[in-house]
Amino acid sequence: MPLVLDPAAQDLLFREARTANTFTSEPVTEEQVKAIYELVKYGPTAFNQTPLRVVLVRSAEARERLLPLMSEGNRAKTGTAPLVAILAADHEFHEELPRLLPHFPQAKDVFFGERTVREQSAGLNAALQAAYFILGVRAAGLAAGPMTGYDAAGVQKEFLDDDHTPLMIVNIGNPGEDAWFPRSPRLEFDEVITTV
Amino acid sequence: MPLVLDPAAQDLLFREARTANTFTSEPVTEEQVKAIYELVKYGPTAFNQTPLRVVLVRSAEARERLLPLMSEGNRAKTGTAPLVAILAADHEFHEELPRLLPHFPQAKDVFFGERTVREQSAGLNAALQAAYFILGVRAAGLAAGPMTGYDAAGVQKEFLDDDHTPLMIVNIGNPGEDAWFPRSPRLEFDEVITTV
Repeated sequence: MPLVLDPAAQDLLFREARTANTFTSEPVTEEQVKAIYELVKYGPTAFNQTPLRVVLVRSAEARERLLPLMSEGNRAKTGTAPLVAILAADHEFHEELPRLLPHFPQAKDVFFGERTVREQSAGLNAALQAAYFILGVRAAGLAAGPMTGYDAAGVQKEFLDDDHTPLMIVNIGNPGEDAWFPRSPRLEFDEVITTV
Repeated sequence: MPLVLDPAAQDLLFREARTANTFTSEPVTEEQVKAIYELVKYGPTAFNQTPLRVVLVRSAEARERLLPLMSEGNRAKTGTAPLVAILAADHEFHEELPRLLPHFPQAKDVFFGERTVREQSAGLNAALQAAYFILGVRAAGLAAGPMTGYDAAGVQKEFLDDDHTPLMIVNIGNPGEDAWFPRSPRLEFDEVITTV
């Protein structure tokens, strides 16, 4: 077999895992979230930057503030998911670079002195980290329901600040009844990958 | 244990895997690349869109065109990696949406009629897919060396077109001698994750 990853792990992370639209009431514990982070924090990024920030919406008060900002089609599932996480990009991530990249601390200023450069880099690398996070949720045996349908400016104003922009909102929990649609098609290998 | 993913799989994908800077001469086969794609194509994206495109640089002629476009610090490793992949975002991904999202084919026009909206969506979702691809390389027992240091306009002109922008270039192979630096630090849980 050309893959060395265990087939059960392939299923857990990719083949059997699905984006969940309904959830059971079983809670997602702090211990689970910590284990997810301690795994996915090792996912690679450019210059070892870490622009991803996560806001866990746990209180009823915070959820009440979030729900009106969700697209109508996302409101019910976000209202009932055991845990909701706002994933955001920190555009001031360069402040931590001297600590995160000890063999090249100058990167902070040499490469990331300009805010527009940082915003572009944070967008790409926080998205990579968001993908690692989604797979980490699956690695914990949980289902993720990532969503981009929400009032981004409203979420930023209510939960973040001028230096943090939301990337996506992820419902997390154990899948409930009729949790997903049938699997939709994917593009064929030759439609995506070309050789030169 | 709060994670259900097998510890060996955790190591393979996250804990032991590292960004490689040197490679052995062992080739990366077409069978391996196909197995990687057939696994990671299931990674979730918004509206099941598939903006990621991959150009495998296999011929000596193509590699010669690529090398001068790499940053000086990336040139040697890109010159010797068994396989080099250009990962790009397709800004016309919406054309495939009626096929990829059969229960909501209108998404193509309702959500993605505007090019600027598509560019933003392609940037986020192709980055998610790039992260799945990197982990897929690791799932094949190979090391990935993703890089953002290259002449993006030059790579687009030489290998892509106006509808495709490069996201990163990934060296792929088996790690060689002194393939990586010591592991650099990561942010602590409380620096990344807050609860409201």
